[in-house]
Amino acid sequence: MTATLGDIAEHVDAQLQGDPAVEISGVASLRRAAPGQLSFYTHKRYAADLAATRAAAVVLNAAAAPASPVASLIVADPYLAYTRAAALLHPPPPFSPGIHPSAALDAGAQVAADCFVGANTVIGNNVSIGAGTYIGPGCVIDADVSIDTHCRLHPGVTVMAGAKLGKRVLLHPGVVIGADGFGLANDAGRWLKIPQLGSVVIGADVEIGANTTIDRGALEDTVIGAGVKIDNQVQIGHNVRIGEHTAIAGGVVIAGSARLGRRCMIGGGGAIAGHIDIADDVIIAGMSGVPNSIRQPGAYASGVPITEQQTWRKNMARFRKLDALARRVFRLEKLVE
Amino acid sequence: MTATLGDIAEHVDAQLQGDPAVEISGVASLRRAAPGQLSFYTHKRYAADLAATRAAAVVLNAAAAPASPVASLIVADPYLAYTRAAALLHPPPPFSPGIHPSAALDAGAQVAADCFVGANTVIGNNVSIGAGTYIGPGCVIDADVSIDTHCRLHPGVTVMAGAKLGKRVLLHPGVVIGADGFGLANDAGRWLKIPQLGSVVIGADVEIGANTTIDRGALEDTVIGAGVKIDNQVQIGHNVRIGEHTAIAGGVVIAGSARLGRRCMIGGGGAIAGHIDIADDVIIAGMSGVPNSIRQPGAYASGVPITEQQTWRKNMARFRKLDALARRVFRLEKLVE
Amino acid sequence: MTATLGDIAEHVDAQLQGDPAVEISGVASLRRAAPGQLSFYTHKRYAADLAATRAAAVVLNAAAAPASPVASLIVADPYLAYTRAAALLHPPPPFSPGIHPSAALDAGAQVAADCFVGANTVIGNNVSIGAGTYIGPGCVIDADVSIDTHCRLHPGVTVMAGAKLGKRVLLHPGVVIGADGFGLANDAGRWLKIPQLGSVVIGADVEIGANTTIDRGALEDTVIGAGVKIDNQVQIGHNVRIGEHTAIAGGVVIAGSARLGRRCMIGGGGAIAGHIDIADDVIIAGMSGVPNSIRQPGAYASGVPITEQQTWRKNMARFRKLDALARRVFRLEKLVE
Repeated sequence: MTATLGDIAEHVDAQLQGDPAVEISGVASLRRAAPGQLSFYTHKRYAADLAATRAAAVVLNAAAAPASPVASLIVADPYLAYTRAAALLHPPPPFSPGIHPSAALDAGAQVAADCFVGANTVIGNNVSIGAGTYIGPGCVIDADVSIDTHCRLHPGVTVMAGAKLGKRVLLHPGVVIGADGFGLANDAGRWLKIPQLGSVVIGADVEIGANTTIDRGALEDTVIGAGVKIDNQVQIGHNVRIGEHTAIAGGVVIAGSARLGRRCMIGGGGAIAGHIDIADDVIIAGMSGVPNSIRQPGAYASGVPITEQQTWRKNMARFRKLDALARRVFRLEKLVE
Repeated sequence: MTATLGDIAEHVDAQLQGDPAVEISGVASLRRAAPGQLSFYTHKRYAADLAATRAAAVVLNAAAAPASPVASLIVADPYLAYTRAAALLHPPPPFSPGIHPSAALDAGAQVAADCFVGANTVIGNNVSIGAGTYIGPGCVIDADVSIDTHCRLHPGVTVMAGAKLGKRVLLHPGVVIGADGFGLANDAGRWLKIPQLGSVVIGADVEIGANTTIDRGALEDTVIGAGVKIDNQVQIGHNVRIGEHTAIAGGVVIAGSARLGRRCMIGGGGAIAGHIDIADDVIIAGMSGVPNSIRQPGAYASGVPITEQQTWRKNMARFRKLDALARRVFRLEKLVE
Repeated sequence: MTATLGDIAEHVDAQLQGDPAVEISGVASLRRAAPGQLSFYTHKRYAADLAATRAAAVVLNAAAAPASPVASLIVADPYLAYTRAAALLHPPPPFSPGIHPSAALDAGAQVAADCFVGANTVIGNNVSIGAGTYIGPGCVIDADVSIDTHCRLHPGVTVMAGAKLGKRVLLHPGVVIGADGFGLANDAGRWLKIPQLGSVVIGADVEIGANTTIDRGALEDTVIGAGVKIDNQVQIGHNVRIGEHTAIAGGVVIAGSARLGRRCMIGGGGAIAGHIDIADDVIIAGMSGVPNSIRQPGAYASGVPITEQQTWRKNMARFRKLDALARRVFRLEKLVE
């Protein structure tokens, strides 16, 4: 959609330097923006792009404003203001309500009249789907699932029996909600499956990335708090509880019964052990392993940065004997003192 | 289903303290159990929950039994006995045999009369599906696949040509069995694809978690032994062989031609290199990398535990020069002695 | 298909020792090859298998040729020549063109006459699919996608709006192309979604493994260069650019806006941070974390090899205090000198 610069300035709470009547049709990078588009500037690295931009206007902070060759939307946090403007100009694509004739809905499913259900989607008994929800093609919604209003399920999502999704939940392709957790008891060398009887409860405004999996609880529910954002290919085990507004980057593995606090940020590619607690406001760097609880807010890391392979090989040879090396140092200290 | 306490005690081989005629309708945690439900107690941490439980009965060991405020099922291994009781009370949901009219079965597919095939599932030529098997909606079973009796494939599972599944195999949503392995030969800087001509053979009683992938072999088969349990988002490369009753937690990557022994336990988020052997009864901690063969049973680890970021930064600066540090220690030793 | 030894020798540019008229029906390992099959020999480890093979002929190098008990195809690089022969003898299975009656094609989709579209596949408006392309069952191709000639999409692939696939692209089951990137701005503790407006462009001859995800760009496109090969369960964030003929093994996580050079080889299970550059011809060992740019070609590693758990525990206790240990060594040096 389009909006005038004046409307956008008001929407993002910016001071406008320029003509408020100019029509803006969308956002683009400084380099690529055409006349009629809005861009943003956040870092000196892009100073040359700013100077050369053909955008109609740029979102930036007061210090940078004098360098803008075009109209300026001046704000304290340009990235946030840009996001708001982009969301205004590029809302999710609208859809025409309706159920594709190839969709297979159980007679006991309740789908609000203004929903969309895509081709070949399967919806089970006693499912309820709230107003304004979009369910793409090729999804499977198992029995007794409850999906609140204005959710958007992209193609190929699977939601297993009994899961509850809050308002405006956004699921990307290939997401699996509510598969059985990995619950096993050992019986003289063989594994016995423990029935997984809990379900999954997902709060409002949660977004879950492609091919991410969230297991049902063993006895109680797996709970994803409101506003949580989860990237692609994240694995969340049974009984995990994630506090509101926590963000988890791609490829993280969270083992069963871990509890994460609110507003945490978990870097990509790491792993969090089961049955541990992570406090609110914890930031974990990418590729970190978290074997124990973290009780204090703050930034944590464990990844080993990459080095040239020959150096790595030598360091690793020492690392394997680090305890011995430490003991030699202590012995030397005694000898010297 | 329901069972009497007496029946459950016999089923799990427990000594019953309480009325054998009491009807039990299901299991629940100590905190949540309502009258008529069975719970279990395994750790002092839950002593207060035990004291306050409203469960009809609790599975626990002899030492804990005096603290039980309700009927007791006394066993040596409460977790295992609880699992057996839960499996008795909560069997997999039954299904009515039948093939959904929207399923697309090739004329050359052979499906036993008491199977279930869900909506929009596609079954190829020369597929055979044994008695009592359930295939959920949205699955694709490619040509020449053989699925034995009493298997359960949840929605959205893909099984590629020629794979063989043993009895009672359980596949969770999004599992992909038999995609091509990552076989490439380098031709002056370009990659040539090596045809992947083997298949996948999965033993009886194997369970495979959501979105896990198991590649077909290059020339011979990828083999998953009987009783193996694999969690979500595990990647198993071509020609891998996994011994019976091994368990693999979420997010593990196993490269091509690795061989894992029997009864191993592989923690989540790690990686196992290709063309290596791991002995029987090896336990690998989470987030571990295994670059070489492990010849002896035992417990192994390589993950670097997380620390506060400032400490981590200082340690890493030293770590990058660990070889030099070791040399300085050795030089000091010579000087001192 | 079958070919004569003479034809194969010419095709792979080998010197033939043996009867060129012998018919070869396929390839197999040295151990398993039956008469009429071709095998290959690359390593002394398999010397006994070579001596005992029943293959009709073996691909090997000149040094090994005297040990061959059967006909020999002598080349400089037996693995490459074997690959070429295998590709000749085992081309991808042919298909009969046609659109399955259960497929749901939008009226605005343009599908070339000799394509195959499988059961329950959904194809959106303004999609164009080039000649000779195969789209398996259960796929979803969203609006405005362009798929070039002779591509092969296996079952259950999802391609989101606007993505462009070059010639001969091969996508394995469960691949998701063009889901939204993980773009968020923080608004006083809540996350605001940044519209993801770019798309994904995939070059010719790219192969992408099962359940791998490649996100659409935020403003510009995510770009996968020609000839790139990506294994299973790889996560590629928005705006990533991967140079031609780079190969990426299973389970790697590549964060947004990373740029990888040409002909790189990325080992499995690692992670690459966002907004960094990796030069051409970089080789990264498995389980490595790459937090910073790599400017020079060469081999790099960061994984910590596994040790027996008791040793690991002792080493880790020292590692947590590595900075302090280094300081003690420096102090000792001052004392001694």
